[in-house]
Amino acid sequence: MGWLEDESGLDRCEANFVPLTPLSHLNRAKDVHPEREALVHGNRRFNYSQYHRRVTTLAGAIAKMGIRPGDVVSTILPNIPAAMETHFAVPACGAVLNAINVRLDTATVAYIFGHARPKLVFADTQFLPLAEAAAKDLAHPPVIVEVADPQAGHSATGKFHEYEELILNGPVDFNWMMPEDEWESISLNYTSGTTGKPKGVVCSHRGAYLMTMGTVISWRMTLYPRYLAIVPLFHCNGWNHTWLLPAMGGTIICCREVRAKAIYDAIADEGVTHFGAAPIVLNMLANAEPAEKRDFDRTVEVFTAGAPPAAATLKAVEGLGFNVTQTYGLTETYGHVTECVWKNDQWDELSDGERAAIKARQGVRIPTMEDITVVDSETGVPIERDGKALGEVVMRGNSVMKGYYRNADATRDSFRGGHFWSGDIAILHPDSYIQIADRSKDVIISGGENVSSVEVEGVLMHHPAVSLCAVVAKPDAKWGEVPYAFVELKQGATASAEELIAFCRKSLAGFKTPKGVKFTELPKTATGKIQKYELRKVVSAD
Amino acid sequence: MGWLEDESGLDRCEANFVPLTPLSHLNRAKDVHPEREALVHGNRRFNYSQYHRRVTTLAGAIAKMGIRPGDVVSTILPNIPAAMETHFAVPACGAVLNAINVRLDTATVAYIFGHARPKLVFADTQFLPLAEAAAKDLAHPPVIVEVADPQAGHSATGKFHEYEELILNGPVDFNWMMPEDEWESISLNYTSGTTGKPKGVVCSHRGAYLMTMGTVISWRMTLYPRYLAIVPLFHCNGWNHTWLLPAMGGTIICCREVRAKAIYDAIADEGVTHFGAAPIVLNMLANAEPAEKRDFDRTVEVFTAGAPPAAATLKAVEGLGFNVTQTYGLTETYGHVTECVWKNDQWDELSDGERAAIKARQGVRIPTMEDITVVDSETGVPIERDGKALGEVVMRGNSVMKGYYRNADATRDSFRGGHFWSGDIAILHPDSYIQIADRSKDVIISGGENVSSVEVEGVLMHHPAVSLCAVVAKPDAKWGEVPYAFVELKQGATASAEELIAFCRKSLAGFKTPKGVKFTELPKTATGKIQKYELRKVVSAD
Repeated sequence: MGWLEDESGLDRCEANFVPLTPLSHLNRAKDVHPEREALVHGNRRFNYSQYHRRVTTLAGAIAKMGIRPGDVVSTILPNIPAAMETHFAVPACGAVLNAINVRLDTATVAYIFGHARPKLVFADTQFLPLAEAAAKDLAHPPVIVEVADPQAGHSATGKFHEYEELILNGPVDFNWMMPEDEWESISLNYTSGTTGKPKGVVCSHRGAYLMTMGTVISWRMTLYPRYLAIVPLFHCNGWNHTWLLPAMGGTIICCREVRAKAIYDAIADEGVTHFGAAPIVLNMLANAEPAEKRDFDRTVEVFTAGAPPAAATLKAVEGLGFNVTQTYGLTETYGHVTECVWKNDQWDELSDGERAAIKARQGVRIPTMEDITVVDSETGVPIERDGKALGEVVMRGNSVMKGYYRNADATRDSFRGGHFWSGDIAILHPDSYIQIADRSKDVIISGGENVSSVEVEGVLMHHPAVSLCAVVAKPDAKWGEVPYAFVELKQGATASAEELIAFCRKSLAGFKTPKGVKFTELPKTATGKIQKYELRKVVSAD
Repeated sequence: MGWLEDESGLDRCEANFVPLTPLSHLNRAKDVHPEREALVHGNRRFNYSQYHRRVTTLAGAIAKMGIRPGDVVSTILPNIPAAMETHFAVPACGAVLNAINVRLDTATVAYIFGHARPKLVFADTQFLPLAEAAAKDLAHPPVIVEVADPQAGHSATGKFHEYEELILNGPVDFNWMMPEDEWESISLNYTSGTTGKPKGVVCSHRGAYLMTMGTVISWRMTLYPRYLAIVPLFHCNGWNHTWLLPAMGGTIICCREVRAKAIYDAIADEGVTHFGAAPIVLNMLANAEPAEKRDFDRTVEVFTAGAPPAAATLKAVEGLGFNVTQTYGLTETYGHVTECVWKNDQWDELSDGERAAIKARQGVRIPTMEDITVVDSETGVPIERDGKALGEVVMRGNSVMKGYYRNADATRDSFRGGHFWSGDIAILHPDSYIQIADRSKDVIISGGENVSSVEVEGVLMHHPAVSLCAVVAKPDAKWGEVPYAFVELKQGATASAEELIAFCRKSLAGFKTPKGVKFTELPKTATGKIQKYELRKVVSAD
């Protein structure tokens, strides 16, 4: 390939080849932006000089506790400074960060502990009982460090070493251990496990670094962004934003509790320019009480993933000063790897409904992905770009995980024919924009016809009384499966099951129309995703 | 280091590891931004779909001409579409691009041909005589393809295969040869050779890709920038912008002739948002005739390198709607690797003079550089950050060349102790911002004292009659060397040598004050750099 006739003396060396790692971003920010605000949590504010020093002493303290390169260090933390600081300090000791979802049940955390085998856990005071209970029956339980958050009402219990104490006493001259090989592991993130045991997704320093660089383009960020951390850092490492922001001299505003008032206050008082959030957060912002809302003088860029917001929600949210971009990704892809890139020259002049229809698409690959396409799950042949045919999303690129930890079978199964198989079902529009139709397991097969639950939900969301909904397959003696809807109504609104079914029938074929509706609060994951497997249990039990 | 206890199944594979190359950007743009304008040259306009197809057929045609991976393909082209297209088409055949400065003399081009051994040369009709003359005496002369530019008055001579003919007849289904290893060579750029024979700087696909990603941050670019290509593509591959722009869906506006009217017209008519240019171009814009100037409704971001503009020039240029950022780099570093990152919170409120003084700094490293510092040339010890001590700029990072082609000695000499030694002399400000004082060979040693020629030039530039100046060492029997100034006066302005010497003496020590002044047009390189070695010849001959 592209080697010159004589490449002598042209090998990689220390001067011209540095293994890619997001650690470099914070190292540079300390030099380039020392006085720039890096991290804000209520009345606590750290600039890059302070942030870097805290990370350094923390890393030194972790190393002094006996953590060796390649060891796993877990965290059970909401979005507070310790969540960000461990994202740098743990890899700065050569260790691998395992950020655990704070809303998991004890059994699942115990499973993750047993599988990841952390030597050390950083647990927020509020979630200390979870960490203790999950570690209780382990043969080699991890050391626990407590992270108190007094201003949020969680003062230290005194039962364990406390986080600020480590930082205070850690060595200020600790030398970060930069990776020697950029393929070394930086994090280990467990999937939500809706289809079985959670799987441990292993990410590399290289992948995380490239994700940060691609996201700059994708998120249209320039110098000094102010990012509101709503996406939990235990969800794909917060889509890698903690690692990215030092490259921009940006500021992270912590968001421990996701509530409309806190978000509006941060936007107005802290000058937020960007955030990511589940669609449910957009609903929350649109439906907030007038007293909770605040004015702000800029367009805030919001990136969302999951069920696209209905046209009405989108219009309401955009009218408030937010520009919403739909994205798509998985734990296996470091966060979002497609986004609905907006073609201003073609789409700015469209009607609200047409714009919303386009904004519901998951779009096209971000710059770090080499190929994302949709193929027939059986044959692997690319589907037609006709906006109708369904296929599985497959992809290839530097934002794909190394594989599943201690699960070579699952890794092999997901990497077939040179692609990662996502398990997500989508259509392709003629302009090559992807639109997710369903998780493959969420497709409803009724009388031999595929029904996209997302399509039915999209119709239901247009009903003025519906706040949130989920459609799942209900076992049926005649049809095999039929669509069944679970609905949350808007506050004060009313609607009957018959009314909603009739409403759907107006725009859907008979086999796609729900055969029943149940009004109930929907079960959700920590990131606001609706837990369809819980709903399937309900319909199966019926 | 950071390897998990069990990394089985976690190896690189096709799905999760793609060798980094800027070729990926154009491949993606074809899918993501097919109808977006990619390239504009006068009345010729290509969108990304057309651009990609032209590159594909061109690459296919090149391969059909017998060019094999690793072969060198040269170009002698001004900034016309062929310059951009060869930046993709040549590496898309696995070949290595050697873009040659169109203003070089025959002997130097002949030397480059003899050293790089291209199999093929693309030469603009205007520079065809140069290509032919340089190839004349070679044992294995390259095949010449003529690139005509009829709208610029350069119609095809008919003596050679013509470029558009190749594109028209090339195979539309040619499969790009993507690198198997990101360390493969993408380009071979010859230094200006002010200190001896030009050296061939070898760049990798990885380095070029990372440079594009770092530049997005450095240049504060968001989606759809419109870039005016003033920096010649034969100068550090145009600072890698041709490779970068597809990642942003951006548009390149070609600038064949660098003249004030053409630049103002492009800004006003083509919506230019960014360009890079030598300081001399800023002077040209500031001093343009009123009839040449045009109004525009946005701030245009301008990046410059070389002697920083004087405060008055800066004020004039910024008053016209340009925001100027000083940068620094070398052919050996893919273009600029430091920039004067603007601290808006600290510097926005300063006076014009104070702002200009800060804007004259070369600043801090861009995100792809791991370390840039200033050390004592003899001992390698970092100098004080006191704004006074002089030292040599050394650096380490992914934007450093692979090395010099067929010159392992020079490569070894420039890579010592894990750093690349730039040969440039700088001071370090207390905030770690670098300010270039001189090329090490341009330092004047007078009576044992180091005199920075850049410092003396900075003082001279403040004189209202001085348009451009250069200060060099004049051999002197008593002092060894003394400073001597060459000056271009502004149109219609007058000043005597005595007057300028007295003016300098007001703010400079005696040993730094020029001992003589000559009024003359300064010799410049193709990129507007003043050729001090020519001036040194003049003073030595005196």
